[in-house]
Amino acid sequence: MSSASKSSKLRIGKLVVIGVGLIGGSFSLALKKARVVRRVVGVGRTKKNLDTARRLGVIDEASRDAASAVRDADLVLIGTPVGQMPEVMAEIAAELGEATVVTDGGSTKQNVIAHARRFLGAHFERFVPSHPIAGTENSGAASAFAELYRDRNVIMVPQIETKASAVRLVRAAWEACGARIVRLDARQHDEMFAAVSHLPHVVAFALVSMLAKRRDAQTLLGYSGGGLRDTVRIAGSSPEMWRDICMANREALLELLDSYSDELELARGAIESADGEALIEMFRRARTARSRWLLKKA
Amino acid sequence: MSSASKSSKLRIGKLVVIGVGLIGGSFSLALKKARVVRRVVGVGRTKKNLDTARRLGVIDEASRDAASAVRDADLVLIGTPVGQMPEVMAEIAAELGEATVVTDGGSTKQNVIAHARRFLGAHFERFVPSHPIAGTENSGAASAFAELYRDRNVIMVPQIETKASAVRLVRAAWEACGARIVRLDARQHDEMFAAVSHLPHVVAFALVSMLAKRRDAQTLLGYSGGGLRDTVRIAGSSPEMWRDICMANREALLELLDSYSDELELARGAIESADGEALIEMFRRARTARSRWLLKKA
Repeated sequence: MSSASKSSKLRIGKLVVIGVGLIGGSFSLALKKARVVRRVVGVGRTKKNLDTARRLGVIDEASRDAASAVRDADLVLIGTPVGQMPEVMAEIAAELGEATVVTDGGSTKQNVIAHARRFLGAHFERFVPSHPIAGTENSGAASAFAELYRDRNVIMVPQIETKASAVRLVRAAWEACGARIVRLDARQHDEMFAAVSHLPHVVAFALVSMLAKRRDAQTLLGYSGGGLRDTVRIAGSSPEMWRDICMANREALLELLDSYSDELELARGAIESADGEALIEMFRRARTARSRWLLKKA
Repeated sequence: MSSASKSSKLRIGKLVVIGVGLIGGSFSLALKKARVVRRVVGVGRTKKNLDTARRLGVIDEASRDAASAVRDADLVLIGTPVGQMPEVMAEIAAELGEATVVTDGGSTKQNVIAHARRFLGAHFERFVPSHPIAGTENSGAASAFAELYRDRNVIMVPQIETKASAVRLVRAAWEACGARIVRLDARQHDEMFAAVSHLPHVVAFALVSMLAKRRDAQTLLGYSGGGLRDTVRIAGSSPEMWRDICMANREALLELLDSYSDELELARGAIESADGEALIEMFRRARTARSRWLLKKA
């Protein structure tokens, strides 16, 4: 069965997107473009962002009240920073219908699952934890675009309690967005993404933060080239979202930060003692791993 | 006087490019495209790269002997890693003509100037230290392209001894490549580029090196998204070139590595003690500095 025929079966009458930013807004736009959703209600905290979302056709209706918005919904995507998810879940739990399926777009999974188990109560069996591996450094409804998920992986982490019908709906929705589904264990997910995503973000944020503290920061940055620009692109990401992710995935991240500090210390030692061989060995290891990885991706 | 009319006056009979990689090869291609050079001789250590350079029209002739190649040259560009420059300079000094102008493309300037002063002898007055702020993560003659320097800055660091006529020639050549000239003091240059280029390279190399040491490295990298890809793009750069740069700009780089470690330690402490406020402050500082910088660049 092709993914086109799969998604042609998908019909979502009412989609509610809580947190109409890059992740939630793009989910809505992609499903609208695939013509599989009839009506999208966006829920958010600020009127300004919701107005933007409506004006740009990212959502059809706006609401400031998640609880009333989710009534009669077929699918709810929680697209807020992970730190807000417990509150959102607690708010909507009493109003969720018996058939409403809930999913999320959070970058950490163990904590989101723990919150859902606690706050969604009986509805937990229709909660399908997911994490789309897609994003840009921009945030807000205006940054959303329908193609964000095309050919990207979405990690799905269904639990023992999760109903197969809920998994099918969420899978079909992400596939209608053009994404591929990958299943992972929640713990494995969190450890892997601490390494390939959360650590790199902290590394980039810290690099720009440190440069920004210098009095000559803007002059300095003015002379920089494409290398720095690409290296710190992700330092333009949402501070709130990344604080939440760092807090949520604390243990794995701390361990990786230690490994990274050790590696930097090795580089520092090699530079200080003029040990060119050690330095070139490190740089070669990095270059080789990167090349192999790019080859596989191609 | 427009830059077009400036470069229309420029005529280089014989250009010698020592080290036909991304920097040297692109310099040659750009000057050929601007039709300001008659003949380009490429000097290198490996026959294979020189053959590639000739086949791709990057150079007209190849030589394995720098000393004989520079005879009768109007302009010599030393495009090797900075660690090879003393040897190259010592080799060519005896054969340089009385009118031959020499420049380089090295990413550090204080050490290159010191080497030139020592090894070029009387020819030092026609040596114009320069550093084009352009590059990609690729290396070798095949990575060269004529547009590399278009609208990019080239830092020029002429010394008291440097002849005005030599400065004019080198300036005109870079301008014919489409670049803008910026003058900086050598020490200031090295300190600034330690911050905006050398440190980010070490940061990126160390990040990939550390991930590459894990047994699950390739699986891990397979799940990563665009964030990591951009952050570590520069970890694909030439290990030899970057070893040389790190060694050459050791003092400034060590100081910055310490500041960076301190900043990482701040992030680590905030994560460990669940101090979300401190973390968000750091991330906001980074995001704001990056936005300002991008605004200026636009």
